[in-house]
Amino acid sequence: MSVNRKPYQLVSREWQPEDTIIDIGGTKIGGANFAIIAGPCAIENEQQVSTICDFLAKCGVRMVRGGAFKPRSSPYAFQGLKEEGLVLLKQAADKNQQKIVSEVMEVATIPIVAKYADVLQVGTRNMQNYPLLKALGKIDKPVLLKRGMSSTIEEWLLAAEYILSGGNKQVILCERGIRTFNNDTRNTLDLGSLALVKTLTHLPVIADPSQGTGVRDLVIPLSKAAMAAGSDGLIVEIHNHPENALSDGEQSLYFDQFKTLLEQIKAYARLEHRNIQLSSNTEDISV
Amino acid sequence: MSVNRKPYQLVSREWQPEDTIIDIGGTKIGGANFAIIAGPCAIENEQQVSTICDFLAKCGVRMVRGGAFKPRSSPYAFQGLKEEGLVLLKQAADKNQQKIVSEVMEVATIPIVAKYADVLQVGTRNMQNYPLLKALGKIDKPVLLKRGMSSTIEEWLLAAEYILSGGNKQVILCERGIRTFNNDTRNTLDLGSLALVKTLTHLPVIADPSQGTGVRDLVIPLSKAAMAAGSDGLIVEIHNHPENALSDGEQSLYFDQFKTLLEQIKAYARLEHRNIQLSSNTEDISV
Amino acid sequence: MSVNRKPYQLVSREWQPEDTIIDIGGTKIGGANFAIIAGPCAIENEQQVSTICDFLAKCGVRMVRGGAFKPRSSPYAFQGLKEEGLVLLKQAADKNQQKIVSEVMEVATIPIVAKYADVLQVGTRNMQNYPLLKALGKIDKPVLLKRGMSSTIEEWLLAAEYILSGGNKQVILCERGIRTFNNDTRNTLDLGSLALVKTLTHLPVIADPSQGTGVRDLVIPLSKAAMAAGSDGLIVEIHNHPENALSDGEQSLYFDQFKTLLEQIKAYARLEHRNIQLSSNTEDISV
Amino acid sequence: MSVNRKPYQLVSREWQPEDTIIDIGGTKIGGANFAIIAGPCAIENEQQVSTICDFLAKCGVRMVRGGAFKPRSSPYAFQGLKEEGLVLLKQAADKNQQKIVSEVMEVATIPIVAKYADVLQVGTRNMQNYPLLKALGKIDKPVLLKRGMSSTIEEWLLAAEYILSGGNKQVILCERGIRTFNNDTRNTLDLGSLALVKTLTHLPVIADPSQGTGVRDLVIPLSKAAMAAGSDGLIVEIHNHPENALSDGEQSLYFDQFKTLLEQIKAYARLEHRNIQLSSNTEDISV
Repeated sequence: MSVNRKPYQLVSREWQPEDTIIDIGGTKIGGANFAIIAGPCAIENEQQVSTICDFLAKCGVRMVRGGAFKPRSSPYAFQGLKEEGLVLLKQAADKNQQKIVSEVMEVATIPIVAKYADVLQVGTRNMQNYPLLKALGKIDKPVLLKRGMSSTIEEWLLAAEYILSGGNKQVILCERGIRTFNNDTRNTLDLGSLALVKTLTHLPVIADPSQGTGVRDLVIPLSKAAMAAGSDGLIVEIHNHPENALSDGEQSLYFDQFKTLLEQIKAYARLEHRNIQLSSNTEDISV
Repeated sequence: MSVNRKPYQLVSREWQPEDTIIDIGGTKIGGANFAIIAGPCAIENEQQVSTICDFLAKCGVRMVRGGAFKPRSSPYAFQGLKEEGLVLLKQAADKNQQKIVSEVMEVATIPIVAKYADVLQVGTRNMQNYPLLKALGKIDKPVLLKRGMSSTIEEWLLAAEYILSGGNKQVILCERGIRTFNNDTRNTLDLGSLALVKTLTHLPVIADPSQGTGVRDLVIPLSKAAMAAGSDGLIVEIHNHPENALSDGEQSLYFDQFKTLLEQIKAYARLEHRNIQLSSNTEDISV
Repeated sequence: MSVNRKPYQLVSREWQPEDTIIDIGGTKIGGANFAIIAGPCAIENEQQVSTICDFLAKCGVRMVRGGAFKPRSSPYAFQGLKEEGLVLLKQAADKNQQKIVSEVMEVATIPIVAKYADVLQVGTRNMQNYPLLKALGKIDKPVLLKRGMSSTIEEWLLAAEYILSGGNKQVILCERGIRTFNNDTRNTLDLGSLALVKTLTHLPVIADPSQGTGVRDLVIPLSKAAMAAGSDGLIVEIHNHPENALSDGEQSLYFDQFKTLLEQIKAYARLEHRNIQLSSNTEDISV
Repeated sequence: MSVNRKPYQLVSREWQPEDTIIDIGGTKIGGANFAIIAGPCAIENEQQVSTICDFLAKCGVRMVRGGAFKPRSSPYAFQGLKEEGLVLLKQAADKNQQKIVSEVMEVATIPIVAKYADVLQVGTRNMQNYPLLKALGKIDKPVLLKRGMSSTIEEWLLAAEYILSGGNKQVILCERGIRTFNNDTRNTLDLGSLALVKTLTHLPVIADPSQGTGVRDLVIPLSKAAMAAGSDGLIVEIHNHPENALSDGEQSLYFDQFKTLLEQIKAYARLEHRNIQLSSNTEDISV
């Protein structure tokens, strides 16, 4: 740490100038690759998760998200289906050869989540849960590290440094919006920080326009804006019946909106020379 | 106001569903049109402003910005050349058939600024300077209304309502970044609010990625992101010698960067079917 | 400015170690003195303002506040009675030998406000209205400079520096709450900054717990907290019928609450050896 | 939850109107009682911790704090002495009949921390660590729940609700400053929220002026302000050699400052009729 005056080291561009590219069963994130991760906020039941995964497969989406262990502000809110939910998501994803991203909330459930998920997500409330970060530094699966809702870039990169310094080099950062005085949107998607952090670290950085805005109709423009700002991918919430979703329905895309999103983001990818990570035989998403 | 439960009226989409298009000597802002405004933060001297305006003319830029009356945090900082600066900018712009955007800080100097400028800018510190807004409601020139650095969308639209209710319908909104806990960038460019406000108002909305980030190297990615999010234009700071600029040098583009910005933003405009407002005979900016 | 590395000078403790004490017709602010300013948010009519001023006189309050030129977010909201309001306030105050604090929003109305008011208030939205600050630097009346709602301490002190560098040394700073993510209170009264700014400047600093919280029932505890943190006074909103107030009724004290506030703040003043500025013959406020 | 429209229940004043009073080996927090907790940020070595605890004992302080498991932004920063630190703190505290407050960062170390500490602290970064909160709902020791640095009051009370709904009714809330645009102080101590939350919940609420300001010289004024605003106690950092402290030295009080703090806070307690929880035979702290 003597030469490098930044408080972080392993995550820095000085330590590794070239982009880290993470390969998740053939789907790549980082470098020229642009990943699309989509799925429901929470896994609710077999029918919901299979309907969504099947639809996403037809769209060419190879990575699905779905929460089984849910951090909820209220102890009385739906807390997720836990392992049962992961089983459902795994069945639905396997049928479509899709990879899974799911949140892990504590050290004790890492083995359960890792049994089903291909990428373990750390949520915004846990970005500075250091025991969790240390434990994730010891596993051999990629970690999706969401930015804390009031985290500086330095704190965010230091959180990643916890994982890398533990031995796990596969960290994907995710800008998901910060908390500001502005309540017109749920959070303030901070694309300036996304662009800046890309210059500071070799790790891939993706954006969550669903959490970042909290408004369904803002997801498409902000998804495109994220790619324009340099994002390496998107994680997006989608639901077969958003109005009945058990959580975050108002920010979940309808199926038709998701198709529109993909069409537009593909055009952006061509312009930006990004290799969008979708199944090649599904370029036509007129499903 | 009885039916419309929003506190603003004339600026709302309910009042006027179709986009307002503002025509500044042939350059249009709003609707499918996408405007590029560029220039130095402050007008410093004849040589500086003519060099920059000439360069911008070669790039096809038809609207130039430059501050003559500068709101500075310190009474001991350079306060601008005042009317002398406007004379210099007018000479440089006239030579190139360019239109002028310049800031007005008080009611008393509206006649002076309006004598030279085609668009009068209200800065972030004056967004709730109601006597100024009321006076600008009585002039017949467009007003560029920057968002207050801690302003909600409702406050911003109500500030525009002050101008429209005075009789001046030509208001261009400008998202220029909000003040948040995040100091890694000078401000936090709030593209979620930009996208949202476009759904609420018929007025054109542009972005200022220079103020919005404070970092030169973030201007290109955030300019593209702003267009992707739905912006109707950009206002960008540029300088022939940024390192010697009297203000905001670190966020002013070099000439070469500006050319790169234009190349990329033109490609984005084609993709988004936006009619970029540049002189047609200068599509080739290999000046 | 060569030795002093702070960007401000005249307002600094380095420039003047001893506290500035401002004398408003015998009522002092600064040093050991603690001032109480109270009155309605807006002057509404003769009966309202005289009722309130008479009550305050019985309580010993020698400085009354009341807005005649009101900065309102909406152009359709009550904008104040303007000069007519100042006439009413002046009549009510003169009857009770009270001094007047009232807001000035623009250079053009300084003469009108200064004709009636003993202290000219600059509101939070105008803290960086530099033409206004410069003009106030040329008058010979005290200025009450409210902190901008998203202003740093440096920006606040530089705003005061504008006034002092113009020649007017009589500036009273006022912490009135900052805008944060927290919307449970209208603003976040920043008593840490109040305590800090007292170490940096010799100017008196008072607190506005009404604006600072927006909640009537929080005014008493926060008033005491402000004195504990080192405030040199309070500016408090009170109304004879808060539920019918034309503005800010929910944060205006009832008369009985104000009496309780005074009782408690007097006890605090004795403890802190502060010379509370109330008419001596009204120590007993069992009016 | 049908009648009560607030999302929390057990923590609310509607559920329990009277103040919860928590008894920690004879030291009470809540109701008329006012608790003083003090100690170093981190336990560093035997000499440091015994010196500090002995000094605090002479001052009458019956509850000491000291971090053994430290949440640090950087993986390369001192992480605390862990159980060894708790052993040292326990020895020093036992000698003086003092009770211990120490932070627990994860479910797995609850038994270790609970073995030595009388109150388990949840830090600001873990306020929404729900597995930790649930586990703390099952123990029979008091929990000191710090407010998340960007937490709303509702989120804070819901975090407490997690603990109460698990069966543990002994929760002490702690306002420790929020993260705002203002960086002149480390955090913004939000005494308005402290006063407000006292009206919403029956749980005791204390303040941390050390974390809340980050500046040693602001601790005394903000401690008094916290009591004035209705706080039920203080948790303060102190060090025998602040300039050599391994963490947070700049906000740690010198011994002499702590004596001044106690003197002043005792006077405030008399004024506010608060029963300050100090050893009665040490009213004279001229140690």
